Amino acid sequence: MKRLLDEAALRSLARGCAVLGTGGGGDPRIGLLLALQALEEVGPTELVDLDDLPPEALIMPCGMVGAPTVHIEKIENGGEGSILREQLERLTGRTVAALMPAEIGGSNGLLPLTWAGRMGLPVVDADGMGRAFPLIPQVTMHLAGVDPNPGVMTDERGNVLVFTAISGHWMERLERSAAVEFGGAGAATEYIMTVAQARDGGAVRGTFTLAIEIGDALTSAVGEPIAALVAVTGGFPLMSGKVTDVERRTTKGFVRGSVVVEGLGDDAGRLLRLEIQNENLVALEQGKVLASVPDLITVLDSETADAIPTERVRYGQRVTVIAMQCAPIWRSAFGLEMAGPRAFGYDFDYVPVEELAGASA
Amino acid sequence: MKRLLDEAALRSLARGCAVLGTGGGGDPRIGLLLALQALEEVGPTELVDLDDLPPEALIMPCGMVGAPTVHIEKIENGGEGSILREQLERLTGRTVAALMPAEIGGSNGLLPLTWAGRMGLPVVDADGMGRAFPLIPQVTMHLAGVDPNPGVMTDERGNVLVFTAISGHWMERLERSAAVEFGGAGAATEYIMTVAQARDGGAVRGTFTLAIEIGDALTSAVGEPIAALVAVTGGFPLMSGKVTDVERRTTKGFVRGSVVVEGLGDDAGRLLRLEIQNENLVALEQGKVLASVPDLITVLDSETADAIPTERVRYGQRVTVIAMQCAPIWRSAFGLEMAGPRAFGYDFDYVPVEELAGASA
Repeated sequence: MKRLLDEAALRSLARGCAVLGTGGGGDPRIGLLLALQALEEVGPTELVDLDDLPPEALIMPCGMVGAPTVHIEKIENGGEGSILREQLERLTGRTVAALMPAEIGGSNGLLPLTWAGRMGLPVVDADGMGRAFPLIPQVTMHLAGVDPNPGVMTDERGNVLVFTAISGHWMERLERSAAVEFGGAGAATEYIMTVAQARDGGAVRGTFTLAIEIGDALTSAVGEPIAALVAVTGGFPLMSGKVTDVERRTTKGFVRGSVVVEGLGDDAGRLLRLEIQNENLVALEQGKVLASVPDLITVLDSETADAIPTERVRYGQRVTVIAMQCAPIWRSAFGLEMAGPRAFGYDFDYVPVEELAGASA
Repeated sequence: MKRLLDEAALRSLARGCAVLGTGGGGDPRIGLLLALQALEEVGPTELVDLDDLPPEALIMPCGMVGAPTVHIEKIENGGEGSILREQLERLTGRTVAALMPAEIGGSNGLLPLTWAGRMGLPVVDADGMGRAFPLIPQVTMHLAGVDPNPGVMTDERGNVLVFTAISGHWMERLERSAAVEFGGAGAATEYIMTVAQARDGGAVRGTFTLAIEIGDALTSAVGEPIAALVAVTGGFPLMSGKVTDVERRTTKGFVRGSVVVEGLGDDAGRLLRLEIQNENLVALEQGKVLASVPDLITVLDSETADAIPTERVRYGQRVTVIAMQCAPIWRSAFGLEMAGPRAFGYDFDYVPVEELAGASA
């Protein structure tokens, strides 16, 4: 499978990345603008399947690290990807064959595609999360035992850092502190891997195709976009209502906070609380967990079913909150250790969203 | 000139580095212990003059970056130097011929010697400041136009960062944030240069010899060590008294604060205030500047004339504060721009300490 991503595909992709971003990954509107500009200047980027590439070919996972609130105002210059690639090729003595988003969610699903297009490289139909997560080692590459080194970061000014970290945890600490020093966000690559490693559990496959399908479903939905989205994602609507409280702060390279949604219509009288670290981590109702990481929780505009990133949520918005099943690998013991509720400091065990939804139904 | 640094030389060197540290550079007691251990394990390090090395040979300036308060408790493992060297040799494709302290002051005067000895390399009789300063680009290499890149940092755990910064200022920002993430301090090299560059203004020469002379003078002084120190350094005693107030905080990779000394004996009734950023920056009396950066200001134990680093100053100590002339290059326009009072946010122009002392006399 090879596919050239035209304007319609990019627009659908952006809507799909927003949904899969589960609030994070950076506002896809920024990513879409950069992608459309690259389309106009250098033509469409090629989307390829992992099976289209030789097993020993190198894949560069990449994206932005930092706080999405910063990313709205501190925009990439488009050349970050080629700096990351040059460094990796110099460090490894090998050639990068394709780019891959570390996370398909938000702007980070679009940016690697843009960088790839500008370099004449393809982007693979896969990513390292099947969603967005806040931390560097919360990627399938980590679960598959891929070495995070060498990590490379750069900013729009042209500073370059190369990291050899003793662990994924230290890669996170060192990249995060550099992102903060850069002003809150930086472009990064880590966990470089071969196509064979990506096929062998190192990536969540087909997530570009899924994101485009989601966007297409929203675009072609007539009257009931939320229903169309639920149909294509197999998601579970948790509640519809009005945003009545938003607490949000940008600190140490993350956005943290919470959102309260007051039920309307059939949900009148209900209160839903979302807790945030870049992404929506947990949905609670009267202390009861309705959904949690690693499952996806997305806030949608109730009219258009467009996903609202955490940094754009505000008082008075009419929203519908849905939850979706994560990629199966996140439900493994190692997956939950890295990205389950306890990995974020919560003192409860993960229960799959379909079980929680079945129990409340 | 070549010289093997035996135990007596190391002990004198430590006392001299403390004096030239002007309060900073890390407690030389730690550096001395590491140097004595290396002496016992691998034998003495060779001290060489820049004229003993071929002009194209590479010199690696190095030391610790961070807050001296942290350095008291977070000790190097002794292997940091060889990690820095390996990285530099890999990055440049060339061989490092000798090490040099980025700053002769404090523990940072001793540590490169220790690292060099463990690698079987010499250390050059020179440094990048002729004292200690808090910021990375406050070095003679910067004044001489040497490229700060590549910078390398490592910690006692084995994490390694390589920096390609767009300026010395950005090298400072990025290394400082990594030092903070490492726990407050890290080992670093930047401004790698040739012997020819070092001879051509890139280094302050003879500072190991000077530090050892200072230490020898203190050791052989009978009865009047302060007078012996003033004789060997040409320094200006500012005041003798008792430390009555210390304000000190470790923040963002620096120690900042102030010290008040109340005069005793001939100085009874006087109050002297020192302002600190790792090093003693300014000595003030009733708002009048007695001495300021880039000149050296050192707090000495009034009995022994041993220098007291900023992180060891405490209430009740009997001290004598002296000021010494800085290396001439710091009095150039570029030198003052980088390390004069205004570089530290003070709104006054630099006046050489000998003029200030002449005016008060």
